[in-house]
Amino acid sequence: MKVYLDAVSTTSVHPEVLDTYKKLLDKYYCNSDALYDDGVAIYDMQEKARKNIAQMLKVKKEDIIFTSGASEANSLAIKGLCLKNKDRKHLITSIYEHSSTYNAFRQMEEFGYEVTYLKPDQNGVITAEMVEEAIRKDTLLVSVMMVNNEIGSINDINEIGKTVKKHPGVYFHSDITQALGKLEIDLNNVDMASFSAHKIHGLKGSGALYRKSHIELMPIISGGQQEFSIRGGTSNALVNIVLAKTLRLSLEKMRSDEVYLNSLHKRLMDGLNDMVTINSPLGGLKSLINISTPVQSEVLLNALNNKGIMVSSKSTCGSKKNEPNRTLNSMDIDDTYAIRVSFDYTNTIEDIDYFIECLKEILKRYA
Amino acid sequence: MKVYLDAVSTTSVHPEVLDTYKKLLDKYYCNSDALYDDGVAIYDMQEKARKNIAQMLKVKKEDIIFTSGASEANSLAIKGLCLKNKDRKHLITSIYEHSSTYNAFRQMEEFGYEVTYLKPDQNGVITAEMVEEAIRKDTLLVSVMMVNNEIGSINDINEIGKTVKKHPGVYFHSDITQALGKLEIDLNNVDMASFSAHKIHGLKGSGALYRKSHIELMPIISGGQQEFSIRGGTSNALVNIVLAKTLRLSLEKMRSDEVYLNSLHKRLMDGLNDMVTINSPLGGLKSLINISTPVQSEVLLNALNNKGIMVSSKSTCGSKKNEPNRTLNSMDIDDTYAIRVSFDYTNTIEDIDYFIECLKEILKRYA
Repeated sequence: MKVYLDAVSTTSVHPEVLDTYKKLLDKYYCNSDALYDDGVAIYDMQEKARKNIAQMLKVKKEDIIFTSGASEANSLAIKGLCLKNKDRKHLITSIYEHSSTYNAFRQMEEFGYEVTYLKPDQNGVITAEMVEEAIRKDTLLVSVMMVNNEIGSINDINEIGKTVKKHPGVYFHSDITQALGKLEIDLNNVDMASFSAHKIHGLKGSGALYRKSHIELMPIISGGQQEFSIRGGTSNALVNIVLAKTLRLSLEKMRSDEVYLNSLHKRLMDGLNDMVTINSPLGGLKSLINISTPVQSEVLLNALNNKGIMVSSKSTCGSKKNEPNRTLNSMDIDDTYAIRVSFDYTNTIEDIDYFIECLKEILKRYA
Repeated sequence: MKVYLDAVSTTSVHPEVLDTYKKLLDKYYCNSDALYDDGVAIYDMQEKARKNIAQMLKVKKEDIIFTSGASEANSLAIKGLCLKNKDRKHLITSIYEHSSTYNAFRQMEEFGYEVTYLKPDQNGVITAEMVEEAIRKDTLLVSVMMVNNEIGSINDINEIGKTVKKHPGVYFHSDITQALGKLEIDLNNVDMASFSAHKIHGLKGSGALYRKSHIELMPIISGGQQEFSIRGGTSNALVNIVLAKTLRLSLEKMRSDEVYLNSLHKRLMDGLNDMVTINSPLGGLKSLINISTPVQSEVLLNALNNKGIMVSSKSTCGSKKNEPNRTLNSMDIDDTYAIRVSFDYTNTIEDIDYFIECLKEILKRYA
């Protein structure tokens, strides 16, 4: 039996997305910037997808920049803004951002920027008050993720955005990668937001940056006229086209499957019961549960793997690094014994039961 | 009848590449950095692809960094090197590089770098002597493309590399996008080289940067441990895997189809004969011919499009911009009347004949 419980790492491609993508690949290959009919046809489909994505996010068409994923989008938002606005040299983010955000800020320190790294409260939350307190006269950018990818805590990006808005000249960016398709998102008070397709049953190498179109960014991938001259390179048009369908299907599922996901959540929590410590805070994402057990995470992951169960101990982007887990450390949780279990609508009650059964057996054996 | 004569803009995906890619998409979706078996299996395939690509280019496995394409690879090589080595502030490139290279250098000017833009000779060639003359004590990087994408002139990157090597502390990068699969490439004296898959019948959104592994680069896409921590983002592993097959098939075709391509070239040149001015130099790429006619390129492209013939007037990345054509301008050629015709092994003698026939008719009508 194979059970995939690592939905926050990546997801399988939705059959409808895959089918459409394959059909597009069979039919179209021209450069979407070519001026002949076959190029224009692809361009028009891509621009329709851009419009549809914008509508679903309730933003403007020209606010959407296609990228190769969320890491690129985060890098573009942060570095692109900083390097275009060199007068203000103070930046604010949280200590538990995804590595692409965190390392982009670390890089900006090398460029003479001062960065305030906010620490989450005991519920793993970054509040608007924390942001308000950190803002200075020379602050340029605040970047706070909507859902933390290790413990599933949720930040109120609408409130944070409102707070930032009170300070002219300060921009607010949010990495919404782990929130999209799981929570309703209001971007009204958010200036920029990043997401990827592969976390919502789309293709890898696909994502977008939403940025209010008046915000100027320095391109990190230089090139031609593509993406409003902000992101160079021959458009990955067919991939961009299916991102619209990916997002639509994901939002539909989110709205239709809430009850089902709640039942999976309840089954998981009932099963875990007194067996483990729950690190994820109340009020966090129901589909991402971080736990600590008496067994070292490396040993536990390996034992679960032998049972066909796929879970991870931390962000997959740092799976092979011996660096401390910034999220857990910031909440004073020992990362040696922690693993994260994440699921979505493709999982079944049987998946959860099998996981609980195996976990019970392994803990008995090793403890 | 549809005739595609814009191979330097992009190419169709090779049926074998497409078939393999689809099969991989059906079977695999895990994150290649995940530590469970299904993740490791994908990782191993990707690393085997990296090794195969390295072997074909006669470089080391750890020299290959997968990217989303050549524009990203060019940006990473140029900006990544400059921003990691701030002591030397002089850079050398040519005036007719692809927009991703050219605009990366323009950006570096904003960071306090001084850039020498070399002008090609009357044959459209940048010589080792020109580079030698331009190198200063504070030069950090020389970047010269191997094949120009507008006129097909060929630069001897081995000779340029040897010249650069005489100056310790200076690195040599080459954009080999338009050379790969068309010419034998010797990277022995090249420190970094960029290429994309979609120009050699591979997938869009796929490419790589070769860089000698001791060269440190600042990541432009920040992130986790992927690609030796130089290029963040969840690996687009399945796309990276088929890049090896794409390259193998392309090199096989290059070696087997030389005679056939020469026959297409001869047919085209015989047909063009006295009808047009040939802008491409002798000794350039045989599959890319830039011509000037008495009819404005915009009008001509449109008339050809109505006949089902797809050609372009300049690099597709700048197709909709009213900027002057840097390549043609540097050779004192009026870009108002120029178009480029490019073909490869997927074209037929009938394609060439039909193009010549239509061109003749259009020129008669408009001239």
